[in-house]
Amino acid sequence: MKDRIPEALINDVVSLSPTNQLVLVHGGGDVVTEMATRLGKEQRFVVSPEGVRSRYTDKETAEIYQMVMSGLLAKRLVLALGKAGVRGISLSGADGRLMQAKRKTRLVIVDERGRKVAIDGGYTGRVKEVNSSLIDLLLSHGYLPVVSPVATSEAGEPLNVDGDRAASSVAVGSSADAVVFLTNVEGLKLDGGLVRQCRAESKKR
Amino acid sequence: MKDRIPEALINDVVSLSPTNQLVLVHGGGDVVTEMATRLGKEQRFVVSPEGVRSRYTDKETAEIYQMVMSGLLAKRLVLALGKAGVRGISLSGADGRLMQAKRKTRLVIVDERGRKVAIDGGYTGRVKEVNSSLIDLLLSHGYLPVVSPVATSEAGEPLNVDGDRAASSVAVGSSADAVVFLTNVEGLKLDGGLVRQCRAESKKR
Repeated sequence: MKDRIPEALINDVVSLSPTNQLVLVHGGGDVVTEMATRLGKEQRFVVSPEGVRSRYTDKETAEIYQMVMSGLLAKRLVLALGKAGVRGISLSGADGRLMQAKRKTRLVIVDERGRKVAIDGGYTGRVKEVNSSLIDLLLSHGYLPVVSPVATSEAGEPLNVDGDRAASSVAVGSSADAVVFLTNVEGLKLDGGLVRQCRAESKKR
Repeated sequence: MKDRIPEALINDVVSLSPTNQLVLVHGGGDVVTEMATRLGKEQRFVVSPEGVRSRYTDKETAEIYQMVMSGLLAKRLVLALGKAGVRGISLSGADGRLMQAKRKTRLVIVDERGRKVAIDGGYTGRVKEVNSSLIDLLLSHGYLPVVSPVATSEAGEPLNVDGDRAASSVAVGSSADAVVFLTNVEGLKLDGGLVRQCRAESKKR
């Protein structure tokens, strides 16, 4: 757990935040995989017919995913922001019912023999509803929301959701000037200044 | 990670929350120990001259402590509250600079031979400053803050702080009607209705 937030990223946020209402949405799937492995929970990955590789999120994985995203990576961001004088607040989809999602009932994947098969969807979801008023409340009081890509199912379970989709969902409803998505592909895990950075979902106001 | 929040506890909070502004502060050190052990980070405990046994929190332990407290236990509480219609928001001391603490430079402990010795204080602290306005902001908008016993040092590091002291600190400055401390001694770890429960720091308004 030696990975730290690149200073350049924090500097960017610090320079933008006095004049812009920003929301950060982070990834960090590689750190989830590393921690899950250390916990003895080997991660399984599946491939879609379009060739997209993704984590297969069973129930235990969903809770580990939430723990690492919200309790480790989001807090590192908030602590780094805090040192730079920015008052970040980390939120997952559970907090204040920020992101409700519909659990995917089935996933279509390509098996070892190259055949399409449908499997149980596990604990992944698609964001359906965002509590934008919470984001707006925090923004209007000078806080910078740091959102983890974890939503809540109808049954109150944590769900793995795509970070870029989470960012879009948050961007649509809120009054933020920009929602910055920190990619999980060589994103948070870097020591140096390597960050791939930062897709801003630009907003019409 | 099969431990769940006792239903009786959630029912109590649900019945109180419409007419009271509540804040929950949770413990859960036993779950931290369990997860740290699974991660291959054996926990060390020390005993004070008064006979109080406590976790020795080195740097890596502090981050695991924060991860489990904020990313696992606080989220379980928030998810359970959400299912019951209560909009919890989990916060650690880092979020919105909720709790700043002074790191203890030295700890006096009793060694194996029964002698008092002073050792480096590690990553534990004493809460010095609480951002009560954040608590009050959330309360006044119908959210129920769920606070983890993690504070931030002057240098921006996560610190292990006593849950009961964290609860007192939050109680003193905020407009909450009650700050409920969920003990970590057979607290959150229970399956049944066993919860030891709930010391309310009663408030003068």
